Parts: sequence; structure tokens; C-alpha cells
Amino acid sequence: MPQAPHTEKHFQGSAAVRDVVIGMADGLTVPFALAAGLSGAALESGIVVTAGLAEIAAGSIAMGLGGYLAARSDAEHYASEREREVSEVAEKRDAERDEVSEVFEGYGLTAAQIAPILEGFEKDKDAWVDFMMRFELGLEAPDPRRARRSALTIAGAYIAGGMVPLAPYMVTHAIGTALTWSIALTGIALFLFGWIKGRFTGVAPLKSALQTTLVGGLAAAAAFGIARLIAR
Amino acid sequence: MPQAPHTEKHFQGSAAVRDVVIGMADGLTVPFALAAGLSGAALESGIVVTAGLAEIAAGSIAMGLGGYLAARSDAEHYASEREREVSEVAEKRDAERDEVSEVFEGYGLTAAQIAPILEGFEKDKDAWVDFMMRFELGLEAPDPRRARRSALTIAGAYIAGGMVPLAPYMVTHAIGTALTWSIALTGIALFLFGWIKGRFTGVAPLKSALQTTLVGGLAAAAAFGIARLIAR
Repeated sequence: MPQAPHTEKHFQGSAAVRDVVIGMADGLTVPFALAAGLSGAALESGIVVTAGLAEIAAGSIAMGLGGYLAARSDAEHYASEREREVSEVAEKRDAERDEVSEVFEGYGLTAAQIAPILEGFEKDKDAWVDFMMRFELGLEAPDPRRARRSALTIAGAYIAGGMVPLAPYMVTHAIGTALTWSIALTGIALFLFGWIKGRFTGVAPLKSALQTTLVGGLAAAAAFGIARLIAR
Repeated sequence: MPQAPHTEKHFQGSAAVRDVVIGMADGLTVPFALAAGLSGAALESGIVVTAGLAEIAAGSIAMGLGGYLAARSDAEHYASEREREVSEVAEKRDAERDEVSEVFEGYGLTAAQIAPILEGFEKDKDAWVDFMMRFELGLEAPDPRRARRSALTIAGAYIAGGMVPLAPYMVTHAIGTALTWSIALTGIALFLFGWIKGRFTGVAPLKSALQTTLVGGLAAAAAFGIARLIAR
């Protein structure tokens, strides 16, 4: 259905933006924290790079395929729920009429105001089913091409994010130096990512930037502490 | 609003189940794949355990805090969008009336059938705003206690899932044996988890079990391959 132009302001993030955010949030955080943790255990930078790349491979595939299956299962869920509604509108007509009435009573309409709506739905069962999907179940028809695109976007964002904290360990063998650079680079990247994410999701950019940096920092500190504890 | 009893069948998963699924799906997969990858690089089992625990700490905090912030930002998003709708209903009355009409025209109702709905909304602006939130924007009022509970559930599920693939490396120093046991235990855990997840999400349990096991297997194989490639 058409939307009045002013409503577009409501939607500040698209599905692709959401996928980039999902992938990059974890991609920047987990490999960073793992590398910091292994530095805390005073291992060689070669091991940190191996573990980091293995983690990026594992994380990007797990999240990407996870996103793919989630989108696919949303689509299947929608199809099976729609089928159920179609048969309910046909077989449990009175119960479904009551449900439509309850929905509108909840918004303060009277029985007299609801009657013409029911009349309209009786004439167009398809519209009735669509209405129940959206209104009773809160489900919207998913985009069929979404699953594959979503998987690639999430995985790509995870890999791009994960290479930032790992890069210093690839450049230098001095693990202390690498850790310092990794913290600095990833801190900046988390801050910028949080800032931009805030602009898309409608959260105040500075707040979003600080929150994102804090999550990465806490995860890295915990991983560092635990790894150092074990290594002693 | 009250729901007719038969509609409950539609909802097979609660928010808590969804959080357990989110945390455990990654918790079973990423530490498993990382440990397999480091085994592929022929490192000591002590390093695998250190890296694995660091990853579990990093992953559970990143995902848990990420879930917390997502739930908080959903709540803030809802509040700010509601404020905008309240002012739009007051200041852009005609545009909002047109939007209500468009919504119902999309379901096949005539102008005559829509008129009483508009009349009802004019008398109850609060109901009008609620309607626009749900219908135009597809937003539902979030549960205020959700953020904290969601964070703890996701993190707990991640830790529980992550300990499964790591346990064998803690028991034996023979890395080949540990890898074999890790694959066997995690394979069974992924299969069972996928099966139960399928029952909650309405996907056929066997299909869900096989998909979940496949994701974990692919992630582990990729991590194994990459780590072995680097270590050579």
C-alpha cells in the first residue's frame, strides 16, 4: 500500500543496514577480544593470527548461515501461518469474525462501526487473511530473495570487522606492540561504527558510539583476564 | 486484547526461547569451530582451552550486551516513534486520516466503510496512535524488563553451549582424541539442539536438526582448513 511521504522518516534502517550492523558488531568485538585474550596468555603472535583467522572463518560462516536459515525459516513460518489463517477464515468463520471485532474494540470502535468492516472482509477473503496475518499475528510477507543476500552481507561485514583487530598481529611479531595497536585501531573502529549505527537506528550517535566501544572493551577485558588466569 | 483460544497455536516460541536459541546456536558453533581449527594447526590442547575459554568469555559478553542494548534501543525507538505519531495525529490530522484510509483501502474496504473508523479514532486519539504504531509502523510496545533478562539468557546459553566442544580438550592432552570427542559430542548436541529448536519454531524437527548440524560442521571445517593452511 502507498505511504504518505512524511512517514518515510520513521524508517531509518533498511534490512541491509541491519545485516551489516549484525555482522560488524560481532566481527569487530569477538576477534578483538580473542586476540587480546591470547595476548594476555603471552602466546606468540603467530598463534594469535591463526586463532583469530580461524575465529573469523567460524564466526562469519556461523552468523551468515545462521542469518540465511533464519530468513528461510521466517519465510516458511509465514507460509504455514498463512495457510492456517486461510483455513480458519473458511472453517471457523465466527471465531475469526470475533477476532476482527476484538481487534477494533481494542481501538475503541463500536459494534456498529465494526459491522461494515466485517462485511467488507466477507466479500474479500484474501484481504481478510492478509489483515489477520498483519494484525493478529504481527507477521509481514518476507522478501523471498532476502535469505541469500542477508547471509552474504552478514558474513562480509563480520570478516571486514574481524580483520581490523587482527591486522597489527600480522604486521609485527612483538605481541605487546600488536596488542596496543589492536586496542587503538579497534577502539576507533568501534567508536566510528557505533556512531554511524546510531545515525541509522535513531539512537544519539555519541551514546551509540560509547556503548559500542564499551561492549567491545568489556568483552576484550574479560577474555584477557580469563586467558591470563589460565596461562599462569 | 483477548485472544480466541485457538489462536495460541500460532505462537510456538516465546522471547526467552528465542534468546536461548540465539545464544546457544553461536555458543555451540563458534567455540567448536575455533577449537577444531586450532587442532588443525596442531597446537597444544592447553592453547586450545585458553583460546576456547577466551572466546566463550568474549562471545557471551558481546552477544549478551549486544542483546541488552538491542532491547533497550527497541524500547527507546518505540518511545520516540510514539511521540512522533502523537504529534502527527495532532498536527497533521488530514495526512494521518489519509493513512488510515489507505491502510483499509489496501484490505478492500470502501470509503463508506472506513468513515466510522475515522470517526471512532477522532474520539480516542490514544487508540489512534496505538493503531498507527502497530499498523503503519509494525511496532509493538516492548516489555521494559526484557533487556536485562534477554542479556543474561543469551550469555548463559552461549556459555552452556560453548563448554560442550571444549570439555574434551580439558579432559585429555592428546589433541587428536580431544578433537574426535569434541566433534562427536558437539555433533550430537547440535543435532539435539536443532531438533528441539525446530519444535519451538515450527520447522520440521529432523530438517532443523540437520541444518543446525550442517552449519556447525561447515564452520568447523572452514576454521580447521584455514588454521591448517596458516600453520604449514
